[in-house]
Amino acid sequence: MKKPKVMLIGCGTVGQGLLEIIQKKKTDISLIAVSDFKKGSINCADGLDISKVLDLLNNGKSLEEYECGPKCCNGALHKGWDALKTIRECDADIMAEMTFTDIKTGQPATQHIEEALKRGMHVTTSNKGPAALYYNKLKRLADENDVKFLIEGTVMSGTPVFNLARECFAGCDITEVKGILNGTTNYILTKMEQEGWSYQDALKKAQELGYAEADPTADVEGFDALAKVVILSNVLLGGNVKPDDVPCEGISKITLEDIKTAAEDDMRYKLIGSTRREGDSIIASVKPVKLPMTDPLTGVNGANNALTFTTDLLGDVTIQGAGAGKIETGFSIFVDILNIIR
Amino acid sequence: MKKPKVMLIGCGTVGQGLLEIIQKKKTDISLIAVSDFKKGSINCADGLDISKVLDLLNNGKSLEEYECGPKCCNGALHKGWDALKTIRECDADIMAEMTFTDIKTGQPATQHIEEALKRGMHVTTSNKGPAALYYNKLKRLADENDVKFLIEGTVMSGTPVFNLARECFAGCDITEVKGILNGTTNYILTKMEQEGWSYQDALKKAQELGYAEADPTADVEGFDALAKVVILSNVLLGGNVKPDDVPCEGISKITLEDIKTAAEDDMRYKLIGSTRREGDSIIASVKPVKLPMTDPLTGVNGANNALTFTTDLLGDVTIQGAGAGKIETGFSIFVDILNIIR
Repeated sequence: MKKPKVMLIGCGTVGQGLLEIIQKKKTDISLIAVSDFKKGSINCADGLDISKVLDLLNNGKSLEEYECGPKCCNGALHKGWDALKTIRECDADIMAEMTFTDIKTGQPATQHIEEALKRGMHVTTSNKGPAALYYNKLKRLADENDVKFLIEGTVMSGTPVFNLARECFAGCDITEVKGILNGTTNYILTKMEQEGWSYQDALKKAQELGYAEADPTADVEGFDALAKVVILSNVLLGGNVKPDDVPCEGISKITLEDIKTAAEDDMRYKLIGSTRREGDSIIASVKPVKLPMTDPLTGVNGANNALTFTTDLLGDVTIQGAGAGKIETGFSIFVDILNIIR
Repeated sequence: MKKPKVMLIGCGTVGQGLLEIIQKKKTDISLIAVSDFKKGSINCADGLDISKVLDLLNNGKSLEEYECGPKCCNGALHKGWDALKTIRECDADIMAEMTFTDIKTGQPATQHIEEALKRGMHVTTSNKGPAALYYNKLKRLADENDVKFLIEGTVMSGTPVFNLARECFAGCDITEVKGILNGTTNYILTKMEQEGWSYQDALKKAQELGYAEADPTADVEGFDALAKVVILSNVLLGGNVKPDDVPCEGISKITLEDIKTAAEDDMRYKLIGSTRREGDSIIASVKPVKLPMTDPLTGVNGANNALTFTTDLLGDVTIQGAGAGKIETGFSIFVDILNIIR
């Protein structure tokens, strides 16, 4: 694909990370639209100047303050279009969907993705909502329109998960995946064990560091990990699992005492999301598990994430890396775009 | 590529593993030649019957006992050709080079690979010799002939290393790689620490289990890891490093006392192969390193291997998996073949 035309729907932290990467790597793409509910919306068929867009974002200004340069596009610049109008009217090759995640409804992202796929655009997203709730439906729609629907960033940010499975385990059957899929809870458990902090103190520190939200429910009750387990089940194991099908228990009931008792037995608590094929069924769960010191997941510290793939030909392979971050998640979208381009 | 024609040069454990995988996965390839110094040599332009080849190998018989079936190829079956004659006379699309590794000369594998590349065949190999000594030269030759030269199995058997870097870190700069690249020494160090065995006892057990050779020098003095560090330097960091450039120290001088003292400081000895770019130079080494418990490599137990990639966009990513094995290394050749086919 020669100089592909890319549109960004949603442009918060991840979008900014992506734009910084595109600029740094001098990638030969044309950014034709950025539409964000809060930050404004601009598009230009002749391509936007990424440095100007980044300047506005970095200075907290509305995108709609964007101005054409002297070699202007003669009226091709539009402002103020909402996401759907942008998708419908702009002729992009690739849409990057990066609006906020609503794990209950998957909206408005799912609608954006459907619109783009129907129009023959490739789609990449880091948004867990549509991936957890509607992956199979959206993948079918993508196949029908002969385009790609890539979601590397939905699990473990840019740390390879779906690209790893597709490109590096080609020919293998993956029978199980299990891992540490939420950095906040892993940070809390690590600090409780290593520093002897109480759950409350560790949670407070995680909030101060920006790992945990003011309302930490989605993390500590396991719902974030749950969404990822559903995605892994459907994408890697060919399942048709819904969030309600998966038993989910978080870490809020784990006490310092539990952790100390486990340590005395040379075990360590981790919040484990896992899914495996058993005959025609998929058995998935999210729960705190006491792991022996020999498990590759036991040594995963702090906010890191990790995933163990069990395969027929390679046995177990574990990958560990960042589970969040502006540049790391921006990279997940970037690598999906590179994948689409070749 | 439609039903690609594949030849195997060298068919020991890895070759058998590969054939078992091809058969199990019902892969649509045509095996047109197998030439092994010890096990005999057969080729047939119409394709060999893989089950028959495996039967002979599994029963310790010479490949030259292979017989055509009733729907025979009418004289297309040849026997007894040496490797070079096989490469020169058989019209394969892909050569899998799996002869024994000679890390001093890289021969005869390097000559086989050159012959195949010059004839426009894609090449995959798990042989560390040519990869450590002549990677850049062979890659150039492959490029000149518009074919691929893939070496996934030379480091960490089939656990993704080069495919991971190429496919999943696309767009990233890799600035450093370091890891546990030899399973035998990691097994010995693990047993010394966990069981309190002496170096000699742990080595003896490793030999009994078939991890270590009767002459364990290549493993315990770090030479096997050294070859892999050279390959990583040249393939992933674009270096032009030779084995003699890399300081190499094994584990034979590590005592139980050293390991206990390290453990008291919450540290663990690992044999670490590492290489990093510093300006225009590559700084590489193999040596025992005391790692803190927070390092992802510290938790790598037994005969497993692991590698940490340091990248500009993703930070550190660590992959852990098998470092050897019949099916695992056979898979490395298999995944390279799949890569060539698409």
